[in-house]
Amino acid sequence: MTRRMHLNAFLMGVGHHEAAWRHPRSAPARLTDVRHYQELARTAERGTLDSVFLADGLALAGKVRHNALGGLEPLTLLTALATVTERIGLIATVSTTYNEPFHVARKFASLDHISGGRAGWNIVTSAGEAEAANFGVERPAHATRYARATEFLDVVTKLWDSWEDDAIVADRAAGEYADLAKIHPIDHTGEYFSVAGPLNTSRTPQGRPLLVQAGSSEDGKEFAACHAEAVFTAQQTLQDGQEFYADLKRRLAAYGRRHEDLLVLPGISPIIGSTEEEAYALEEELEELIIPAYGLAQLSYMTGVELTEEHLDGPLPEVPVETEGAQSRRRLVVELARRDGLTVRQLLSRLAGGRGHRVVAGTPEQIADQLQEWFFNGAADGFNIMPPLLPSGLELFVDHVVPELRARGLFRHEYDSHTLRAHYGLPRPPSRHAARHAARREPVAV
Amino acid sequence: MTRRMHLNAFLMGVGHHEAAWRHPRSAPARLTDVRHYQELARTAERGTLDSVFLADGLALAGKVRHNALGGLEPLTLLTALATVTERIGLIATVSTTYNEPFHVARKFASLDHISGGRAGWNIVTSAGEAEAANFGVERPAHATRYARATEFLDVVTKLWDSWEDDAIVADRAAGEYADLAKIHPIDHTGEYFSVAGPLNTSRTPQGRPLLVQAGSSEDGKEFAACHAEAVFTAQQTLQDGQEFYADLKRRLAAYGRRHEDLLVLPGISPIIGSTEEEAYALEEELEELIIPAYGLAQLSYMTGVELTEEHLDGPLPEVPVETEGAQSRRRLVVELARRDGLTVRQLLSRLAGGRGHRVVAGTPEQIADQLQEWFFNGAADGFNIMPPLLPSGLELFVDHVVPELRARGLFRHEYDSHTLRAHYGLPRPPSRHAARHAARREPVAV
Repeated sequence: MTRRMHLNAFLMGVGHHEAAWRHPRSAPARLTDVRHYQELARTAERGTLDSVFLADGLALAGKVRHNALGGLEPLTLLTALATVTERIGLIATVSTTYNEPFHVARKFASLDHISGGRAGWNIVTSAGEAEAANFGVERPAHATRYARATEFLDVVTKLWDSWEDDAIVADRAAGEYADLAKIHPIDHTGEYFSVAGPLNTSRTPQGRPLLVQAGSSEDGKEFAACHAEAVFTAQQTLQDGQEFYADLKRRLAAYGRRHEDLLVLPGISPIIGSTEEEAYALEEELEELIIPAYGLAQLSYMTGVELTEEHLDGPLPEVPVETEGAQSRRRLVVELARRDGLTVRQLLSRLAGGRGHRVVAGTPEQIADQLQEWFFNGAADGFNIMPPLLPSGLELFVDHVVPELRARGLFRHEYDSHTLRAHYGLPRPPSRHAARHAARREPVAV
Repeated sequence: MTRRMHLNAFLMGVGHHEAAWRHPRSAPARLTDVRHYQELARTAERGTLDSVFLADGLALAGKVRHNALGGLEPLTLLTALATVTERIGLIATVSTTYNEPFHVARKFASLDHISGGRAGWNIVTSAGEAEAANFGVERPAHATRYARATEFLDVVTKLWDSWEDDAIVADRAAGEYADLAKIHPIDHTGEYFSVAGPLNTSRTPQGRPLLVQAGSSEDGKEFAACHAEAVFTAQQTLQDGQEFYADLKRRLAAYGRRHEDLLVLPGISPIIGSTEEEAYALEEELEELIIPAYGLAQLSYMTGVELTEEHLDGPLPEVPVETEGAQSRRRLVVELARRDGLTVRQLLSRLAGGRGHRVVAGTPEQIADQLQEWFFNGAADGFNIMPPLLPSGLELFVDHVVPELRARGLFRHEYDSHTLRAHYGLPRPPSRHAARHAARREPVAV
């Protein structure tokens, strides 16, 4: 069978461009309107995309003056998307730094039941200081956050495995609902967590919801290589994309995993026009709506350097590399400015479209060319699609780019599977206890 | 206007009777089927009920051998009910002992947006030991749980108020999305929490989701009198109901609240037949399906006394009253056994229908008589309806008891309001900051 690409629609308010809310083709009043997101999910499903994805942060962080923020909590919203779709995968971001594994395991298990096996968890460790201040703690060090994430995930998968697939007997005559021999306490005691278990939600259609990750630091890449089944990443050039892809795939073997056990999905914000001119005109319209003060605040946060209007027409000042913040995004931004010799103002324009993700303006064929190039040249197993404006940018992608990809044999014409794991070509993991039973039944070599 | 009663449908798996899953009129396989709950919510809405409600516990606690447990997390499920209903209120239980106020404030705010102002929070403090063991702590003392709940609620309402109603300007031309003067950090520092705020979800249709509570201990009643807007309670006799009702209403004044600021909704499990004989026959069918081992385990948990099959035909042994567990339910059970001189086996039958809530078997008219008696005699502002079997018990209530109540002028014929608060006759609270602005504009007496 031909290798096919995987496509995820990254749904973000009224669009990924930071000035989307000011553009006449967006409707900022729909930021808290569930039907807006339900329509987006249905559009993505009409395009037979693998999944939709919702990002998250746990603080408002004062950026709301110039951008449409203050929307809905992703996991709550995702259930509302599950109920109006049939096939598309549903991925939400949840932090391991400011949550309890019992709650997270249970909420994703519930979503997996509700959606019939379409739930995925994007695991983040919450690098922001403003987030820590909403939970009464100092921001933990980078290594601490990843150590906690590792144990958190261990507890969550133990809880997901705590009911075996055939634990429910439901024998009415005998009065036996469940076979207690197939429901296991987890009795986890570790550095960060002590959790008795079992989970109080039964085993789900996928067994374990899909694990997604997006950190690109050293710790992030090791975590992904060990645990993640799909990785979202920001890569500006084909070469960077190839290096990241090869690096991450190379790390898998150390954890006994194969090349195909983890999908790499670089982000791309496609600015689509029926002609090149139309695409560039839209790009320019959006650029003209940029508010420098907003971009400066964002860039100051990303780089850890306080930037003001006075910096706009000079080069990016020296940026400290060692940080407890979002290391990999900081490095990407600095390299982008250096490589292309950008002023701060030019850098703001380059970041406005996708916060460091690649922005490509062009016709549907040109967008498809770009995706194909990365897909065929060892930089991607698929893509994280980040439309600049929503809903229009997603509609253009589904109605014009998807047909082009299908015509080239690069993308499915219809769903041939029902769960998110199956869309991504990943197996359903057995419960660790079922595996143990199976092992016991193996003939013993003497 | 005539005083009308308020009705909440308490949705519990396949029914409130502990043997419901064994009865041919239930379908235990639907325990994790979202459509089951969606159909129940629609049935309740067809009956113009005020609200539906989902209980919760944070541990499986080993009772699953003989009962259909292991269902869906309530807040996740509630969103799925919001998307298929238009008017009915949606109440979910969330614990203040094992959560963070920032998450809880945000999730209920999101649900309030998604449902168009129909969200309610049943505040519990999680009395169980098994729950504590899933969060790596010893169960906190009763007083500690309530102290934490009080501060938790303070933080949550501060977060809900952190965006004023008119904080969103969305001025595209000027590039101003929000007026930062109307979005307030909360800077809360207390004994249990330190939370900077503001919330990262904007102010919701109800301003603040409805606050519901169900504890009946001294601490629980004081908490309710200070904070709750509706109270679910288990009361076995009219006299007990009247005493509880008067006691709770009497406590309101100390907090500057009026009689009508808090609704008291006793629980009732109606076993409905088209004749008395049919109702009694169903009651007997359910009783025959009871598994004593399950009831004994439940009763042991409630009383803190280890009960075995040997106790079945004797009286309830001495039960310690001082406890860190669920004090008020323990007292109710002991009083029930003493008052009616029940053996343990008889007590199990009385508890099987509603875990201490009142069970009434009869025709629709007889059920309506019972509701009317409590409603007219100072024991209830409405009721928490707990059908023994689901969906059939709710359908019978909506199709036969509700019309009877309407004919008597005791219940609405159609919805005349759109939010949960409005259904319950409660006002929309202003943000504390809006109130401050208003105060500033008052003329100053000199």
